[in-house]
Amino acid sequence: MKNSPIVMYKYKILIAYDGTQYGGWQIQPNAPSIQQTIEDQLQIILKTPTKVIGSGRTDAGVHAKGQVAHFICEQPLDFNKFLYSLNSLLPPDISVYQIELVDDSFHARFSAKGKIYSYHLFLNKFHEPFEQKYYALISKPFDIDAFTQAKRHFIGTHDFKSFANEGHKGSANNCSIRTIHSIDVSYSEQKVVVTFYGNGFLYKMVRNIVGTMIEVATGKIPLNQIEHIFAAKDRRYAGLVAPAKGLFLEKVLYE
Amino acid sequence: MKNSPIVMYKYKILIAYDGTQYGGWQIQPNAPSIQQTIEDQLQIILKTPTKVIGSGRTDAGVHAKGQVAHFICEQPLDFNKFLYSLNSLLPPDISVYQIELVDDSFHARFSAKGKIYSYHLFLNKFHEPFEQKYYALISKPFDIDAFTQAKRHFIGTHDFKSFANEGHKGSANNCSIRTIHSIDVSYSEQKVVVTFYGNGFLYKMVRNIVGTMIEVATGKIPLNQIEHIFAAKDRRYAGLVAPAKGLFLEKVLYE
Repeated sequence: MKNSPIVMYKYKILIAYDGTQYGGWQIQPNAPSIQQTIEDQLQIILKTPTKVIGSGRTDAGVHAKGQVAHFICEQPLDFNKFLYSLNSLLPPDISVYQIELVDDSFHARFSAKGKIYSYHLFLNKFHEPFEQKYYALISKPFDIDAFTQAKRHFIGTHDFKSFANEGHKGSANNCSIRTIHSIDVSYSEQKVVVTFYGNGFLYKMVRNIVGTMIEVATGKIPLNQIEHIFAAKDRRYAGLVAPAKGLFLEKVLYE
Repeated sequence: MKNSPIVMYKYKILIAYDGTQYGGWQIQPNAPSIQQTIEDQLQIILKTPTKVIGSGRTDAGVHAKGQVAHFICEQPLDFNKFLYSLNSLLPPDISVYQIELVDDSFHARFSAKGKIYSYHLFLNKFHEPFEQKYYALISKPFDIDAFTQAKRHFIGTHDFKSFANEGHKGSANNCSIRTIHSIDVSYSEQKVVVTFYGNGFLYKMVRNIVGTMIEVATGKIPLNQIEHIFAAKDRRYAGLVAPAKGLFLEKVLYE
């Protein structure tokens, strides 16, 4: 039976995490990463080093409710048993809550057709103790109408160069044109949730857009200046970057 | 104008806190307390050491959405300015969200006529990253009907000696008779919330009752044994104490 073909299985997993204690999704020196934490526990369960490929990075402090990753292994897995074992080993701020067998052509990053992010603001003079790790606190006067009007400038296909930070050396191409299909703003009980659905997002793009929308809502940037910021194609023209802790990767969309 | 009477003002404050990082409400050696943290910041604002008297202690790791306390000071306070200053100084896991001037006869502890606590369970194989600090995880098979039936044994006026831990040296009397007016159990999406409304609660009483109810629901204690536990008047007969992190002091009731 020598030289018989090795059967490999490819699995897609859904992951939720509180990013507060992590230096981001991606393995890096000097800070624990979500990816490394999962790979470490997978190695215990699968008894071999196993690479976990995510749909994309999330920055230090950013959270996820629906991060997607894939990994390859030689064993067929009992899903319930696998999830139970893995989550027993993982710290409580990371949960792998779903697994499915996928076709060999599936790739968590390259097969992704779109992503949904949400950004959370709390409009108050001071913090709410139980959710303070999951929103940006805005204590200045905030014009929710101006905020909602600002969103229209970002919907559609644009060159988002002014809303992207440099620094992702891993990005293969330099194209900064992206399409945002929709931006929804909901507002209730001093809480604002902004939901972005797009085909892809540049490095820190959501946080730069939200930061600019916040500065429109607090009167620092006039609404009609947004077009000039786009035209400048220079990050320095946009507003401040909104804090990482208000951002959630909600869902990664595939065909 | 010597010997003119000093006017003193008594204030009632409402406090919310995430107890995760604290050794409890009460000042103690070796661990930060909510009380001490508030007193430290009050001293900065009022420019004099100021004692904060709470409605009662909460244990290490227990949370509060409606803790009540009072303090006395010589100055009339601008409420908005006071709340803004105090919360700016407090860490984000403690918030003093309301203040009112009260009559001299008011005492946060002795004027309290009742309290409402909630206890939170999550019935799942593994943790949910964003709320994992605020519930007890139950991964064993759980009979919600038995759990709900168990609550009836605790409603009313009883000697709760079997459900009270020793150790509160500050308690003035040894009476362990208390009245629980109601216990509500709500269940939705694997989350169970148990709400206790009573005239007062002994040390760890809510957590001991919930621990016993959990053991009924997981089949470890038969329902008809609860009366025997009451009759024994001995803490060792009751179930395990439920974890602190699932408990919230919701409200303190006054006349």
